[in-house]
Amino acid sequence: MEQLQEALRKFSEERGWTGNRDARNLAISISLEASELLEHFQWQSPEEAVAARRDEIAEEAADVLIYLVQFADALNIDLLEAARAKMAKNAERFPIG
Amino acid sequence: MEQLQEALRKFSEERGWTGNRDARNLAISISLEASELLEHFQWQSPEEAVAARRDEIAEEAADVLIYLVQFADALNIDLLEAARAKMAKNAERFPIG
Amino acid sequence: MEQLQEALRKFSEERGWTGNRDARNLAISISLEASELLEHFQWQSPEEAVAARRDEIAEEAADVLIYLVQFADALNIDLLEAARAKMAKNAERFPIG
Amino acid sequence: MEQLQEALRKFSEERGWTGNRDARNLAISISLEASELLEHFQWQSPEEAVAARRDEIAEEAADVLIYLVQFADALNIDLLEAARAKMAKNAERFPIG
Repeated sequence: MEQLQEALRKFSEERGWTGNRDARNLAISISLEASELLEHFQWQSPEEAVAARRDEIAEEAADVLIYLVQFADALNIDLLEAARAKMAKNAERFPIG
Repeated sequence: MEQLQEALRKFSEERGWTGNRDARNLAISISLEASELLEHFQWQSPEEAVAARRDEIAEEAADVLIYLVQFADALNIDLLEAARAKMAKNAERFPIG
Repeated sequence: MEQLQEALRKFSEERGWTGNRDARNLAISISLEASELLEHFQWQSPEEAVAARRDEIAEEAADVLIYLVQFADALNIDLLEAARAKMAKNAERFPIG
Repeated sequence: MEQLQEALRKFSEERGWTGNRDARNLAISISLEASELLEHFQWQSPEEAVAARRDEIAEEAADVLIYLVQFADALNIDLLEAARAKMAKNAERFPIG
């Protein structure tokens, strides 16, 4: 994921896309991409959706990750560390058995 | 990210959370978590939001990642590979300069 | 709004669209249409967005309403009455001055 | 719906809530409220959700309408007219039979 973060940083810099890439705009993008992902499952069963459009679905999932990584970068959040911390919290909240 | 995926798989299995974790439900969860993330930026500037609630924001971002990784796992999608493929596509679509 | 509700009911019945129009699917549709509406404002100021695409924006707003009215119909909710009740609650929560 | 629009206008004016109520912020609010509505249906069947929390669901649906009406007001869109126009378009797109 660090490599992806570095690649995204370089990609934006090379294109001068820095002006309006604040955390708020990136949070909006994450939400919009998540909806585009969900859209594939709207009027179909998961099995039908995946059989018909697996590549598009993978691409939408990638879009969510791409914006999420940029969001985390903008706020200097370590996503994997944050996920570990959240899982530890969930493990306490939902004990096994 | 592979470690996270493995940990999430174990977490769900230990709790018997497998029945309704299909791709559609996970896509809904990704979208809901993305909205909870966006909610922090609704009536505040990004700077104010981050100053006031950085930890909650990191946790919401982690939630998006957690569901996204489970979604990718359910569909056997390699998220980092999909992100690389999407970036290559974007590089063609938006050439430098 | 009652006329709209009646027209939507007739529209779905005439097309046999009743099977998967449960409240959950309609709630997903409301969310997806709301995202399509928001998408128009992603990388532009509100003024630019409206100047460039007022008709599309009106159509997306109409889509949100169309699904919301169907959702309310499916659950036998009186939307205008529910809005009045919510405003009364908001008036208590946020007193004038 | 006109009465609701008028009441919402008065409500905001009385509280001086006019500064950041532009179309973009209202579109974000519509999307966030739509997600809160959907959240009720996340891990339950529609029947269970409605049986357990009908009043909260009606309130979330009202919130979507409240922001949608304010959004339409900000852009001077006649929502019911836009819905009629969209339904006419849908009738052509999806002919009966």
